[in-house]
Amino acid sequence: MAKKEHKVRLLGTWRSRFVHRVRLALKLKGIEYEYIEEDLKNKSPLLLESNPVYKKVPVLIHGNNVVSESMVILEYIDETWSENPLMPQDPYDRAITRFWSKFIDDKCLAPIRTVLLTDGEEQEKAMKEAKEALKTLERGLKGKFFGGEVIGFVDIAASCLSIWSEVLGEVIGTKFIDSEKLPHLHSWIEEFTSIDLVKESFPPYDKLFASYKALREDHLAAKFSQN
Amino acid sequence: MAKKEHKVRLLGTWRSRFVHRVRLALKLKGIEYEYIEEDLKNKSPLLLESNPVYKKVPVLIHGNNVVSESMVILEYIDETWSENPLMPQDPYDRAITRFWSKFIDDKCLAPIRTVLLTDGEEQEKAMKEAKEALKTLERGLKGKFFGGEVIGFVDIAASCLSIWSEVLGEVIGTKFIDSEKLPHLHSWIEEFTSIDLVKESFPPYDKLFASYKALREDHLAAKFSQN
Repeated sequence: MAKKEHKVRLLGTWRSRFVHRVRLALKLKGIEYEYIEEDLKNKSPLLLESNPVYKKVPVLIHGNNVVSESMVILEYIDETWSENPLMPQDPYDRAITRFWSKFIDDKCLAPIRTVLLTDGEEQEKAMKEAKEALKTLERGLKGKFFGGEVIGFVDIAASCLSIWSEVLGEVIGTKFIDSEKLPHLHSWIEEFTSIDLVKESFPPYDKLFASYKALREDHLAAKFSQN
Repeated sequence: MAKKEHKVRLLGTWRSRFVHRVRLALKLKGIEYEYIEEDLKNKSPLLLESNPVYKKVPVLIHGNNVVSESMVILEYIDETWSENPLMPQDPYDRAITRFWSKFIDDKCLAPIRTVLLTDGEEQEKAMKEAKEALKTLERGLKGKFFGGEVIGFVDIAASCLSIWSEVLGEVIGTKFIDSEKLPHLHSWIEEFTSIDLVKESFPPYDKLFASYKALREDHLAAKFSQN
């Protein structure tokens, strides 16, 4: 069993929205850790050993404990380091928190990624799905943040939507979350991204933009070369 | 905030593997509840109001608390009624529990369903995926049960694979989990389904078989009528 004071390492890639969730949670908790950047085109033996099932980042290594899957890591962090709790205490509030976090993963992120990587009919279909999912997600916002007056677990899960939805939208020349159609989510992004600690946790916008633009171009080029 | 003694109702359908998870958890905990059978072709106003996001079963209603999504419901039940805990206590064991439960939902159930509802190339591809996922799942079995010597959270999550994998396999004339290729999972099914309390919680095998056979025939007929 790892103790709180055991060394914490995080395997990640700078661009990943899922890795960012974990970095933000560690920052909010004030946990020191060693960050190890992975090259996903040439995965390290440490990554392959630590996450043999998915071979993906993020992976948190805490003493001998190895945890993968960003949402599972967030709960592990919250249960291991109890300071600045991310999850509410009441079982029903916790259920609602898990419901919306799962909704973000299951319904919001995949169509946004598809919009980025496709065009034509496939892109239009995914865009419709993304917009419907984001409209539904607005219902989960009951205050300034998903967590109420302070940011909590769902806000960290939704950090994947904050600057990433802006960057990905800019790459394809659209807005996933605009102030008219999704006013609450739009305000949430403004509030969330203006918190210093959150702001400092993001990769640089321009670097993200260039990287996702290249990713889109590579995908479309690969698609056309297959046709 | 609902109290433990508040009335518990469960909206479900008899055939659903996801509803079964919740019924089994309630049974293991010794929680009395009213079961309300839903007709998914004619959903009740209570279902539509209680789960406006997905409009699906299971939905657990406990006093004024309404919880949907079977894995979220399981955690709610475990946190509200602490007797016979389903989750382990240690944060790392809990992380491993959540990892495998999520793996079952994300990787095992969908391809098995696709195998049931398709044929030809699509079915073959899904069968390959299902078998790979089940082989990986075997790694999560460290003892007689996923929970060790007694059944726990992952066993309940995996109940979706127990008699359902047998029934669905029989409908299409195959075995998803055979004793040679997946010896540990196969033993797990034998051990798990021989526990009286578990055995009693399953819908009748013949009724399940007839129902999934009809579901497959309906799907294939609809596919051919579209061609």
